[in-house]
Amino acid sequence: MGDLRLDRRDGVLTITLSRPERLNAVTASVTEEMLDVLNELMRDPDTRVVILTGEGRGFCSGMDLQGGDPGGGDEGRIQRIYRGIARGGEVTARLREIPQPVIAALHGPVAGMGVSWALACDLRVADPTTRFVVPFVDLGLSAGDCGLSWLLPRLVGPAKAAEIFYRAQRLDVAKAAELGLITELTAEGADLEGALALAGELLTKSPYGLRRTKELLNMSLDAPGLRQQLAMETGIQTMAFFTEDLVEGMTATLEKRPPAFKNR
Amino acid sequence: MGDLRLDRRDGVLTITLSRPERLNAVTASVTEEMLDVLNELMRDPDTRVVILTGEGRGFCSGMDLQGGDPGGGDEGRIQRIYRGIARGGEVTARLREIPQPVIAALHGPVAGMGVSWALACDLRVADPTTRFVVPFVDLGLSAGDCGLSWLLPRLVGPAKAAEIFYRAQRLDVAKAAELGLITELTAEGADLEGALALAGELLTKSPYGLRRTKELLNMSLDAPGLRQQLAMETGIQTMAFFTEDLVEGMTATLEKRPPAFKNR
Amino acid sequence: MGDLRLDRRDGVLTITLSRPERLNAVTASVTEEMLDVLNELMRDPDTRVVILTGEGRGFCSGMDLQGGDPGGGDEGRIQRIYRGIARGGEVTARLREIPQPVIAALHGPVAGMGVSWALACDLRVADPTTRFVVPFVDLGLSAGDCGLSWLLPRLVGPAKAAEIFYRAQRLDVAKAAELGLITELTAEGADLEGALALAGELLTKSPYGLRRTKELLNMSLDAPGLRQQLAMETGIQTMAFFTEDLVEGMTATLEKRPPAFKNR
Repeated sequence: MGDLRLDRRDGVLTITLSRPERLNAVTASVTEEMLDVLNELMRDPDTRVVILTGEGRGFCSGMDLQGGDPGGGDEGRIQRIYRGIARGGEVTARLREIPQPVIAALHGPVAGMGVSWALACDLRVADPTTRFVVPFVDLGLSAGDCGLSWLLPRLVGPAKAAEIFYRAQRLDVAKAAELGLITELTAEGADLEGALALAGELLTKSPYGLRRTKELLNMSLDAPGLRQQLAMETGIQTMAFFTEDLVEGMTATLEKRPPAFKNR
Repeated sequence: MGDLRLDRRDGVLTITLSRPERLNAVTASVTEEMLDVLNELMRDPDTRVVILTGEGRGFCSGMDLQGGDPGGGDEGRIQRIYRGIARGGEVTARLREIPQPVIAALHGPVAGMGVSWALACDLRVADPTTRFVVPFVDLGLSAGDCGLSWLLPRLVGPAKAAEIFYRAQRLDVAKAAELGLITELTAEGADLEGALALAGELLTKSPYGLRRTKELLNMSLDAPGLRQQLAMETGIQTMAFFTEDLVEGMTATLEKRPPAFKNR
Repeated sequence: MGDLRLDRRDGVLTITLSRPERLNAVTASVTEEMLDVLNELMRDPDTRVVILTGEGRGFCSGMDLQGGDPGGGDEGRIQRIYRGIARGGEVTARLREIPQPVIAALHGPVAGMGVSWALACDLRVADPTTRFVVPFVDLGLSAGDCGLSWLLPRLVGPAKAAEIFYRAQRLDVAKAAELGLITELTAEGADLEGALALAGELLTKSPYGLRRTKELLNMSLDAPGLRQQLAMETGIQTMAFFTEDLVEGMTATLEKRPPAFKNR
């Protein structure tokens, strides 16, 4: 633990990739620390919003091929690389599977594995220096990397995804915003501040409502059809009617005051 | 029957939610009447286009928790709520499953269950007072409600859907149009008139073509892959070549006159 | 062979529909020639990019119902039509399944089956005369044709697809570009030139990277969920690390020079 910084405050956990000297390149130990944190969040009722950001002048420069690898003493090279990509993809999956909404706070380069992680977040706050870099086909790699070939066509459509991947397009913040990838654009250097403000807004919302909405949105993309989604929704929504928070939410709305939810 | 008004004219059925004193809030009896009408439409070859609208100053204010419930004498509260949501979702599914194209004529608030029903329609005509309201996480509820968590990410993409749901964003008509949710924007109070004009346009089209296109579009979203869709398309399209209407359509096109289809 | 022109040059295969006197309407023999070419491309490591275009003043006017049919001597009419549509849809599927990126070079009318083929390509370069024509419901046909009901909702979303299909909307090039269907807009008559320039750009990219990216993008749309896609990505990406081209790509990037990939 030294490559990730964790900052917990008022229900918001900020995870900061902290290898600024390497533009937050992702080593095996960064990935394993991330997975430990994400696995904890699966059973953490107190953390209500998560922010993911990077220290220094960029968000993340991708997988660090030169980086240390604590758990791979005896492994061959193919096993080590396979594991690096598979575990990086596991982070992508876990970012979607944790019940808390995740906000990416982006600035500078967002590259390689960092793009997958940024796009796996629910919302993205970016400053004007942000640029998404997907140089895969310029390097001899495929853009099928850590979930990227699943995420991008769902976010921007299959034709735009093909163009971005095949041309190894660099997306500056204006282009990314036009494609609908940016929730909020901030002043330079203010992406974390913006993400904290957005987290503060989400803290005023019902924790049950937010968690279940995130779960259902993610299930929706994989649902075989509308009727399966309806069945999941109906059970989850009915339960909400038996929470104390629903009474508070209804009352607050009638009294035109902000609700004070207690996650009960 | 008094909470729904039905108006049949020249192949167009207009369904009007008619509880204006409650902003057309949906009781169990409204839902059951809707399902009766939709079930009839499944086997009704004469109705070619359906319009769904609301009486008074809004389209629909969502589920009416205080409303009467004819069929639930002995039920417990959990059973009643579960049934209300499940049957509301059944309306969503049926709006997609009936073979007729459905046009929503929208004005004023479109809230809660009303959003699901409006988005389940194929096309939406809206006047400038229209606003979509999804206050779920402000109330203690999840936005997984009557198909909404399935419909919205498919219509606006998963990132925009997350933002709208998590922030309980109110979408005015300009924002909704920008997101691609509005087929036609009309003058104030002219949404039904606009929907009738659009229905009139669709009446000039081939009934077989429209019905089969709607079915295939809906099957497309759930199809396991392109090859399954191709198999469905091929059978359906081949049959069209053996209809009298195809000859009329081809002839009318060659003669540069409007076709007169007979649904034969 | 005579209804398709093939031009191979430097790793780019240009396929030209060549029945300009019939606006490149598709007969059974055109379809079968296309399938022969596409089947060869499945096992052709030398062709790296494919361009599909049409001779004369339009790209393609759709299925030719009057056209010759070499293989159907004894068939009944229903069998012949079924086969024409099924085999046209097979071209759609094959355009997606061949490993090479496919660029459509479009001008003039793109109609009927031609729309399916154009949308099955990965990228589309179009001149200002291009217009997509989907007159199905004006003719008595369904828009479920040769994959169209699968492709269009994935490219423009289900609501825009419904509107285009139900109204038999003609999409001029400006509307098509607004919907995200056009990768590059060229000067009049310069669509093939533009496609060749784009192909030249793709030739500078890693062949392994491009082929695998195309495969993964197509698998992505049919993947049951993110985790299945992650498993496919991880194996494919790991293999890339053991190619000579990866060393070249990494070195070229460090030396800030263009890479010279050898497909090894």
